Amino acid sequence: MLVTDLVNVRYLSGFTGSAGALLVYADRWADDRPPLLATDGRYRTQAARQAPDLQTAIERAGASHLVAQAAAAGVRRLGFEGHVVTVDGFDTLSAVLAAAHSAGANTELVRASGMVEALREVKDAGEVALLRLACEAADAALSDVVERGGLRPGRTEREVGRELEARMLDHGADAASFETIVAAGPNSAVPHHRPTDAVLAAGDFVKIDFGALVAGYHSDMTRTFVLGPPADWQREIYQVVATAQRAGREALVPGARLRDVDAAARQVIADAGYAETFGHGLGHGVGLRIHEAPGINAAADGTLLAGAVVTVEPGVYLADRGGVRIEDTLVVGGAAPASAGTHPELLTRFPKELTIV
Amino acid sequence: MLVTDLVNVRYLSGFTGSAGALLVYADRWADDRPPLLATDGRYRTQAARQAPDLQTAIERAGASHLVAQAAAAGVRRLGFEGHVVTVDGFDTLSAVLAAAHSAGANTELVRASGMVEALREVKDAGEVALLRLACEAADAALSDVVERGGLRPGRTEREVGRELEARMLDHGADAASFETIVAAGPNSAVPHHRPTDAVLAAGDFVKIDFGALVAGYHSDMTRTFVLGPPADWQREIYQVVATAQRAGREALVPGARLRDVDAAARQVIADAGYAETFGHGLGHGVGLRIHEAPGINAAADGTLLAGAVVTVEPGVYLADRGGVRIEDTLVVGGAAPASAGTHPELLTRFPKELTIV
Repeated sequence: MLVTDLVNVRYLSGFTGSAGALLVYADRWADDRPPLLATDGRYRTQAARQAPDLQTAIERAGASHLVAQAAAAGVRRLGFEGHVVTVDGFDTLSAVLAAAHSAGANTELVRASGMVEALREVKDAGEVALLRLACEAADAALSDVVERGGLRPGRTEREVGRELEARMLDHGADAASFETIVAAGPNSAVPHHRPTDAVLAAGDFVKIDFGALVAGYHSDMTRTFVLGPPADWQREIYQVVATAQRAGREALVPGARLRDVDAAARQVIADAGYAETFGHGLGHGVGLRIHEAPGINAAADGTLLAGAVVTVEPGVYLADRGGVRIEDTLVVGGAAPASAGTHPELLTRFPKELTIV
Repeated sequence: MLVTDLVNVRYLSGFTGSAGALLVYADRWADDRPPLLATDGRYRTQAARQAPDLQTAIERAGASHLVAQAAAAGVRRLGFEGHVVTVDGFDTLSAVLAAAHSAGANTELVRASGMVEALREVKDAGEVALLRLACEAADAALSDVVERGGLRPGRTEREVGRELEARMLDHGADAASFETIVAAGPNSAVPHHRPTDAVLAAGDFVKIDFGALVAGYHSDMTRTFVLGPPADWQREIYQVVATAQRAGREALVPGARLRDVDAAARQVIADAGYAETFGHGLGHGVGLRIHEAPGINAAADGTLLAGAVVTVEPGVYLADRGGVRIEDTLVVGGAAPASAGTHPELLTRFPKELTIV
């Protein structure tokens, strides 16, 4: 199989460069057929260090080189990532094969879309350890910001976001997982608001959605605060979302249907009369990408696997007033190797009670 | 034409969301055929605000929706981005067309790869203004770090990188353009080193490659410093790279062949006996992406266009000892609308003399 998605290349080989492709043989690793990693000259040293057991080829046109190698090795069926290779890229690879065919090879390209992503869905113990570190860095950063009075009227969304990102780095993150969302007042009603110079004011909801990146693994957490005593409507929707979020977490059982998990949380919101205000899915897998399999939403097929790491993040958003989202990252069935349990392990441990700051 | 590359969608429409596709008609804009932007429910408000003159469709499967719309509108030839659409994505669009064909449509998908990127190569005055702001933020940040003694023995590469990124935000950047490279001592010989906890020491080269992001536009600059009095070999390779970089800048004339620009700088390095140590291209376009057209390297076809914004970044890297790279971002032919000149406008103005800190 030819692997060209860089995150998949990293997952399988350990190589983290920004250019590379990997050829893996389906038969048992034999001395004459180790996986072959192609990258360019910038990464010669790094590839040797990060993937010492692989053969490395320094080739700018890495995927083409690997296709030629596969053809030369007599491979009949060569899998490729149809969800990653572009139409133009496929033409290039086909031309390489056409040249190989005239030299006697009989290799054909076959679809192998999403195969590595499926492997990535269940995390091993080492991966969970890194995800735990990422979630801990995010927890500690948010605690720092709140304890030091970082959420107060007069600050801008952008200032809060910057402080939070700086504290994540202090706590061992390599970077923020994604652009931190800090949404105050009416902005909190926008599910994916980007921080502006809007000023936090007394009475505002402040919704913060953020994550830390540690050794390639992401965390994802949302908490919503109130600046000063909450109004009745704020208490009400906070309570609805918190109840829905708990229902979603309790539905995270290995073997559960993904759409049933979504429904468990969504029903709470619908029963409270806010169905229309919750316009996104309940959650998603988290790992080497911030969004990966499985998607947990009303249209999802399939079931939850023990060892998957997912978010649960219902929300209620009242346009022009404000919104609440509460999001955790959890390990389904608890962390490997004890992943036979039914209770998920909560990785994002910052408290979820309505916090008045 | 169906545009699915998000940066191209942004360039043509102003919409900056993380999901969207655009349908643009080749004939003159008519009231009944405005461009159509498809995005999902999260971006309803944002799309209306950022692209008020376009029609907007809220559709999760945006590209499929647009293909169906084009077929319904009687479009015969529908361009698509073959360098962006994946093999699986193409199958999905083809299935939409097949369904439309059985309803009487006769639309066919035709390759239109790189057409929008070609438009993006020449920057208009508004784009240059944003690129200038991005370069100014980077200049000001580096000045702050150097003037406050930020480059000194005992600090780690990571600390310097974090300080530089924080200062860019102070000077108006929305974010760093890419992960800041801070490479001290022998690490400076690695062209794309990532910052580590390596400690800066007296006598080290410190190579810093970084950029600021302002309103979607990137800057790109590299400077190399010496901590304390330079050794003779350090003076020598610095001088070679500085001379090569000047030769490259002077070759930035509208109409020049890209490979000749590369050769102008590369020859200086070769004449000094360091040809083998300069293993990358001389430069690249900069705009909404940190790397875009044109590539300036020995294999490049084509010529420099007035109004292109490019980097010039030769380097000499001596393994296990240290390396120097000097990189500027410049506007070919000067900034639009006065882009008929032959002198490039230098956007990254931080001094390039060998600076001993």
